[in-house]
Amino acid sequence: MHKVRPFSERLHAAMSEKRCALVVGLDPRMELLPEEVVTSSRAQHRDNLRAAADSVLKFNMGIIDAVADIVPAIKPQLAFYEQLGVYGIDAFEQTAKYANSKGLLVIADGKRNDIGSTAAGYADAYLGQTGLWEGQTAWPLPVDALTVNPYLGSDGIVPFVDAAKIYGTGLFVLVKTSNPSSSEIQNLRCNGKHIYEIVGELVSEWGKPLIDSQGYSGVGAVVGATFPAEAENLRKLMPHTLFLVPGFGAQGGSAKDVVPCFNSDGLGAIVNSSRDIIFAFRKRGGNYKDAARQSAIDSRDSINKALKEEGKIAW
Amino acid sequence: MHKVRPFSERLHAAMSEKRCALVVGLDPRMELLPEEVVTSSRAQHRDNLRAAADSVLKFNMGIIDAVADIVPAIKPQLAFYEQLGVYGIDAFEQTAKYANSKGLLVIADGKRNDIGSTAAGYADAYLGQTGLWEGQTAWPLPVDALTVNPYLGSDGIVPFVDAAKIYGTGLFVLVKTSNPSSSEIQNLRCNGKHIYEIVGELVSEWGKPLIDSQGYSGVGAVVGATFPAEAENLRKLMPHTLFLVPGFGAQGGSAKDVVPCFNSDGLGAIVNSSRDIIFAFRKRGGNYKDAARQSAIDSRDSINKALKEEGKIAW
Repeated sequence: MHKVRPFSERLHAAMSEKRCALVVGLDPRMELLPEEVVTSSRAQHRDNLRAAADSVLKFNMGIIDAVADIVPAIKPQLAFYEQLGVYGIDAFEQTAKYANSKGLLVIADGKRNDIGSTAAGYADAYLGQTGLWEGQTAWPLPVDALTVNPYLGSDGIVPFVDAAKIYGTGLFVLVKTSNPSSSEIQNLRCNGKHIYEIVGELVSEWGKPLIDSQGYSGVGAVVGATFPAEAENLRKLMPHTLFLVPGFGAQGGSAKDVVPCFNSDGLGAIVNSSRDIIFAFRKRGGNYKDAARQSAIDSRDSINKALKEEGKIAW
Repeated sequence: MHKVRPFSERLHAAMSEKRCALVVGLDPRMELLPEEVVTSSRAQHRDNLRAAADSVLKFNMGIIDAVADIVPAIKPQLAFYEQLGVYGIDAFEQTAKYANSKGLLVIADGKRNDIGSTAAGYADAYLGQTGLWEGQTAWPLPVDALTVNPYLGSDGIVPFVDAAKIYGTGLFVLVKTSNPSSSEIQNLRCNGKHIYEIVGELVSEWGKPLIDSQGYSGVGAVVGATFPAEAENLRKLMPHTLFLVPGFGAQGGSAKDVVPCFNSDGLGAIVNSSRDIIFAFRKRGGNYKDAARQSAIDSRDSINKALKEEGKIAW
C-alpha cells in the first residue's frame, strides 16, 4: 500500500465521477435500526452484543449497496461501534472493507488525539501499518482517512500527517465543529483571532507537505455547516484545505449553508449527512435501502443546485 | 452497577489504603514487549494479530499481578489496543476485567470527544451502558474512568458527566497536556486568561454535580507534570478537581514536578507512569514483572518523599 495516489486526489476523482459532494455517515444507533434487521440478527445469534453488531453490519451493507453508485465515500462514526465492544469493532472493520470493495472511500470519524508517540499508534491503526515483529506489519482497521482533534498541538498531529504521506491516506482536523457549544472554546479570541482561525492556520501549515496536483492537501479540516459565517472566513483562510462538513440535514444546516465551504471551483468540500440518509425510512416509510437511496439522491441534488446557484460549478 | 460509590471516593480510598498516588500506564508497544512473551504467543497462534494481542494480554496480566498490591489503578492507552484491531480491543477488555478482579481501578486513556448525541455513545461504551432492545443493555468495555477532550465544549462533555453520575464512574478532561507542543493552543491568551485556565474553569463547573463527601469531583482534569508552573496555577483554580498527571518519568517530569498537582491535604492527584514501569526490565534487566514491581515501588516512594518534603501529607 505504499505511495498510492494521494487521498485528496482519490476523493476528488470519486466526487467528479459521481458528480456528488455528499458523504453518508454510518452512525448505526441501535434504537433506530429497522426492526426486521435486528430481529433477523437476534434469531441468528444468542449473544446480545454479537446479535447487535451483526445487525449493524447487515444494515450498513444494505446502506452501502443502496448508495455505492451515488456517493464517493462513507463516514462511520466510531462511537456507535465501540459501544458494542469487540463485536462492534469487528462490524466496523467489515463495514470498511465492504465499502472499499464497492469502490467507496472510508472516512473513520474517531476524533483521535494524543501526545506524539501515542498519536503514532493511532496513525498506525487507521492510516498506516502497525509494526509487529521481524519486519512484519498489519493494518487491521484500514480506512482512507480519519478525523483528529488538535487540542494537543503539532506533535499530536504530525504522526498522522506522516502516515498520510507514506500511505496515501488523509486526515480531517477539527477546526470549527457543528455542535451548539462549539463556540465556547473555538470562538474565543486571542490577539485578534478566533481559536478556530488559529487552528485553521495550523492545519494549512500541517497540510503543506501533502498538496496534490490539483492544489488540495490530504490534511483536511472539519468545518460545521451550522456556522456558515465562520465557514466562509475559513474557506478564504485555507484555500488548499479539504473541508469535511458535518451538520447538514438533521443538525440544521441547509444546502445553502454548505456553499461557503466550497471553493469557487466547486471543489474542496464534502458534506456529511447521517441520520437523514440512513434512517430516512422512519420519515419516508418503505424499505430502508430505497429510502436511503432516494434521500441520498435528493441531498446530492440539493447541494449541487445550491452550488450552481452561486456559480460554484465543478461538474 | 447503578448508584455505586462515586469514582472519586473509590479512587481516594484505594490510594489511602495503598499509600500510593502512582498509576501504572499500560501502553503495550509491540517493539518493547519481552521477547519470551511474544515468542510464546506466536507459538500458540498462527494469526499475527491474534498472536500480538495475546502477547499484550499476557504481558498486561503479568504487570497487573506484579503491581496490584502497590498501586490503586492502571491506565491502558487505547491507541496500543486499537492498533491490533478486533483482537486488540478484546485484549483491552480482558485487561480491564482482570485488573478489576485484582482490585485495581481502570482509567481508559482514549481522549474521546464528539458532539452531544455521539458523545453519549462513547459515554455508554465506557462509563455506562449501551441500550440494545426491550430494555436490555450491555457494557462491553467497562472501565472506571475515561479521558476526554474538551475542544467541542460543554455539549460534548455533559453526556460523560451524566453517565458518571449515574454509574459511579469518572472522567478526566484534557486541560494542560504533557507534550512539547501543548502550549500551541492551550497557552494562547484570551481576555487575560490562558486557554488551559478557561478550560480548567469549565471543568470545575462541569464537575460541581459530582462533588463527593471529601470535596472532590468525579470530573477530573489531565494536567501534565512537564509544566509545573501551569499545574500550580490550575491547582489553585480547581481545588475540587482530581488531577490525572502524565509526563512523570520517561517524559521528563520529576517527583518534585508533580507536587504542585496535589492539594495541601496530600490528595487530589494521581501520577501516571507507563514506560518507566512496564518496560523497566529493559534498563534494570531481569524478569519483566520483578522489574516493574521494583520500579513501581521506587516511583511511589519518590512521590511520597517529595510530597512529605513539601508538607503535603495524606498518609
